[in-house]
Amino acid sequence: MRISIIRKGHFNAAHKLYIPSWSEEKNLAVFGKCANPHYHGHNYNMEVTVSGEVDPETGMLINLKDLRDIIGKYVEDRYDHRNLNEEFEEFKDLVPTAENLCYTIWKILREHLDDKYDLSVRLWETERNSVVYPAVS
Amino acid sequence: MRISIIRKGHFNAAHKLYIPSWSEEKNLAVFGKCANPHYHGHNYNMEVTVSGEVDPETGMLINLKDLRDIIGKYVEDRYDHRNLNEEFEEFKDLVPTAENLCYTIWKILREHLDDKYDLSVRLWETERNSVVYPAVS
Amino acid sequence: MRISIIRKGHFNAAHKLYIPSWSEEKNLAVFGKCANPHYHGHNYNMEVTVSGEVDPETGMLINLKDLRDIIGKYVEDRYDHRNLNEEFEEFKDLVPTAENLCYTIWKILREHLDDKYDLSVRLWETERNSVVYPAVS
Amino acid sequence: MRISIIRKGHFNAAHKLYIPSWSEEKNLAVFGKCANPHYHGHNYNMEVTVSGEVDPETGMLINLKDLRDIIGKYVEDRYDHRNLNEEFEEFKDLVPTAENLCYTIWKILREHLDDKYDLSVRLWETERNSVVYPAVS
Amino acid sequence: MRISIIRKGHFNAAHKLYIPSWSEEKNLAVFGKCANPHYHGHNYNMEVTVSGEVDPETGMLINLKDLRDIIGKYVEDRYDHRNLNEEFEEFKDLVPTAENLCYTIWKILREHLDDKYDLSVRLWETERNSVVYPAVS
Amino acid sequence: MRISIIRKGHFNAAHKLYIPSWSEEKNLAVFGKCANPHYHGHNYNMEVTVSGEVDPETGMLINLKDLRDIIGKYVEDRYDHRNLNEEFEEFKDLVPTAENLCYTIWKILREHLDDKYDLSVRLWETERNSVVYPAVS
Repeated sequence: MRISIIRKGHFNAAHKLYIPSWSEEKNLAVFGKCANPHYHGHNYNMEVTVSGEVDPETGMLINLKDLRDIIGKYVEDRYDHRNLNEEFEEFKDLVPTAENLCYTIWKILREHLDDKYDLSVRLWETERNSVVYPAVS
Repeated sequence: MRISIIRKGHFNAAHKLYIPSWSEEKNLAVFGKCANPHYHGHNYNMEVTVSGEVDPETGMLINLKDLRDIIGKYVEDRYDHRNLNEEFEEFKDLVPTAENLCYTIWKILREHLDDKYDLSVRLWETERNSVVYPAVS
Repeated sequence: MRISIIRKGHFNAAHKLYIPSWSEEKNLAVFGKCANPHYHGHNYNMEVTVSGEVDPETGMLINLKDLRDIIGKYVEDRYDHRNLNEEFEEFKDLVPTAENLCYTIWKILREHLDDKYDLSVRLWETERNSVVYPAVS
Repeated sequence: MRISIIRKGHFNAAHKLYIPSWSEEKNLAVFGKCANPHYHGHNYNMEVTVSGEVDPETGMLINLKDLRDIIGKYVEDRYDHRNLNEEFEEFKDLVPTAENLCYTIWKILREHLDDKYDLSVRLWETERNSVVYPAVS
Repeated sequence: MRISIIRKGHFNAAHKLYIPSWSEEKNLAVFGKCANPHYHGHNYNMEVTVSGEVDPETGMLINLKDLRDIIGKYVEDRYDHRNLNEEFEEFKDLVPTAENLCYTIWKILREHLDDKYDLSVRLWETERNSVVYPAVS
Repeated sequence: MRISIIRKGHFNAAHKLYIPSWSEEKNLAVFGKCANPHYHGHNYNMEVTVSGEVDPETGMLINLKDLRDIIGKYVEDRYDHRNLNEEFEEFKDLVPTAENLCYTIWKILREHLDDKYDLSVRLWETERNSVVYPAVS
């Protein structure tokens, strides 16, 4: 019996979409107001989807407490109340778009999750915009 | 023209995650506060997804009234304001985790839905935790 | 500068609306399916509103961490994953309706909150039903 | 690196589910109160999912401003504050069910979106009912 | 012990904001796209707030089933899947703005609710716009 | 006929809670992780409540388009995708807590709203924390 479990998480962070090797004009043309050099920020929401076989005795796919702890320790505690551009090695040369942030979170969680599980991450930057990795089609 | 229709439903129920053949200590270690023998409860929310071919004349995949009635009669009326562990044969030897409850609901709906439709059930136990059967990947 | 701050909280609990000195028929007639003797349950959500003067130096009405800790320690930890009827002295002779539960939570918080603050509690039993104490008019 | 981006949109419109060549009785029997000849209406919400390869330099799948403009210009501006049955050629002989409307929106967006992207549209007619094209299974 | 209880309700209806004695230009200038003579529509959501004294024996302010039935019978059944301008005497000479509709619903409910209760109605026309009668200040 | 109208708005901004004349230790002790000198950020949501007399001819309290434009021009366009601490005169010597930001928004809107209307502003910093000015009690 193969099932998926979905756990929400969130963190609040500052970022800007800005490529230092580009002119300010090009940054503005491509990234719009997200390129403001003084930063802006978001309440990021996540849905982490883990798929696999249910344990027939406990009726659980994964202990939710363990999943919550992995998300809390490696993602929420890492990024909450932080500046993505300034404080993280992984965004030194990578623009912290929702796409790149979502993929980065997926990689972090993938490392701490047993290989027997499939993993997908959906990340909301605002109520109207979100991304999913891997792609749904 | 193949499409999916998604209908929400909900019910409020009591349950506990508890395996009688285990010691109270082991139940607590595995299920945490969900193992409280006095029960706790949830407002369960569902999304029932039905997929198939749209009727070219009516423009409908399935009459929504029929789908609502099937969900209402066989799932909501069955479980609403009930104790999952105490009042149902199906949970006599099956721990009513979100995973097992979701699969049980899927089996009930599968029985009452025409074979020409594909079926998927997502079940929220809280706003932060949900499961989907069949697995999304 | 007088302002109000609103903090959300939640807990999941089992209860029943049942007056032991009444017949089962009368309980059913008054409380409907909420009278099921085997219990049912809810995901309770709260909004705790605290009103008072903002500190001109810090720009804060109350330290949100303190407010969150009071709600967590005295309400969420108390009622989460519990059976309201069976496990609490305060509901031995008091039906745990949303009204009585909301007022009980208000009394608990009132005791642990500085007298200089006004206090109001809104409690959702389901997404469609909630109560507020004190009354809004 | 293949990812999906999801953008919300909405519009408010009137419609009725009514096949003119049928009797009023047959319309009522099939479409229920949705067949009221005087029309009713909805706040339609959409989630438009676009999938493809992320640009390694900008970290973007598609410029969100472009996606928002396509949805705004070709779907929201077209249908917002309109009567689907009376004012649109595409619904002269097609019942504006959620299914047909969702598919119609998908076709409009498909035309204005680069072929390199995959596309999916979810449409909510009410908070409880939604459809997705293409089907999820 | 005075408390307030809040019950949600909803209905889906068509309307237009249009004063027949005005020119089409003036209607457009004042009501914008809401003046489209072919109608548009909304999913209307309500919160009905009833205030009064809790019954010390039952712990209830009002039987929620009774409140739900009053809202269902006199408001939801009346307006759901209807055209506000065309099908109701009360909007023959009254523009069905959110303000007028909210006040009309308040008057209907006031008539069917015991005088011992205070009453307030909040009505959402869209997720972003709502009105409350009586005014909150 | 006195009524209230409530319009939602939102903006995304970076901020930190930090008093420059205090030591970093004191800032951390009082403001916790909100004191991170590199900033963090939020999706701020607002509900702007305007109260007054409905125009008997149009059935409107205030033209919603005008209210939306005032909120858009003077609040959303001002603060969206900005750094509250670095880019605004009003927060040079005022900590941009939710309380101070809410009051500042209220003052801005008060200036651009006709004196015949009463005004209240609710501001969400996260889904769990919000403030209202003026105080509700």
